[in-house]
Amino acid sequence: MCIFCKIVNGEIPSYKVYEDENFLAFLDISQTTKGHTLVVPKRHYDNLLSLESDLASQIFPIVQKIALSIKEITKAEGFNILNNCGEVAGQSVMHFHIHIIPRYANDSFNIQFSSNSFTNEELNDLAEKIKNTL
Amino acid sequence: MCIFCKIVNGEIPSYKVYEDENFLAFLDISQTTKGHTLVVPKRHYDNLLSLESDLASQIFPIVQKIALSIKEITKAEGFNILNNCGEVAGQSVMHFHIHIIPRYANDSFNIQFSSNSFTNEELNDLAEKIKNTL
Repeated sequence: MCIFCKIVNGEIPSYKVYEDENFLAFLDISQTTKGHTLVVPKRHYDNLLSLESDLASQIFPIVQKIALSIKEITKAEGFNILNNCGEVAGQSVMHFHIHIIPRYANDSFNIQFSSNSFTNEELNDLAEKIKNTL
Repeated sequence: MCIFCKIVNGEIPSYKVYEDENFLAFLDISQTTKGHTLVVPKRHYDNLLSLESDLASQIFPIVQKIALSIKEITKAEGFNILNNCGEVAGQSVMHFHIHIIPRYANDSFNIQFSSNSFTNEELNDLAEKIKNTL
């Protein structure tokens, strides 16, 4: 059984901040920043791609609500809301979860974006192909 | 009018991958990785905290669907799904948007997590406070 399933069923303790029929939210033990929270479905889904779309529609309003509460308590000035899907993306526990990472001036978290060049034709072609498989 | 509102109303062209009544998705011009896509509500909301919860519930299943299509086209091995809320979190366009960042072995994107230490008492206290404001 995966570590988040064990947290859900109470085998492993956690610092819970939210619970309903389908979801549990608890403090990430690493506290990348103060208030760093994970939201997980109680049922096991490996990742975003296998999550039931009914649960996908329920989770984001919950994330929003928890972020507002964290802001009130920790005075966070912003948030990164992050899901890592797959090992290549940094997913370490293979039970779908969304990170709520509160942000503060001069905190120790940062996401660096780089750019890559594609021609207009390449981008047009790529967008068309994605659109056509939807 | 913000740049994403101009993209939504067609004043600025974009590489569209998805459109419905409430949302538009298009390739991020920076292409942090190949297939990097933004999903935005057509109506202007500054950020996650001001997004209508009805739209919050619609957006995540759309993100999921687009990610599956990108995977099929680009053979991405994973994804980072990211929302930056607030300047302190790296939000550069103040119109709510979710990044879908496809991931590949040896690509040029990476998110570094660090850890911070808090005592059990501090974590317990923090979780309780957040829970009680929900």
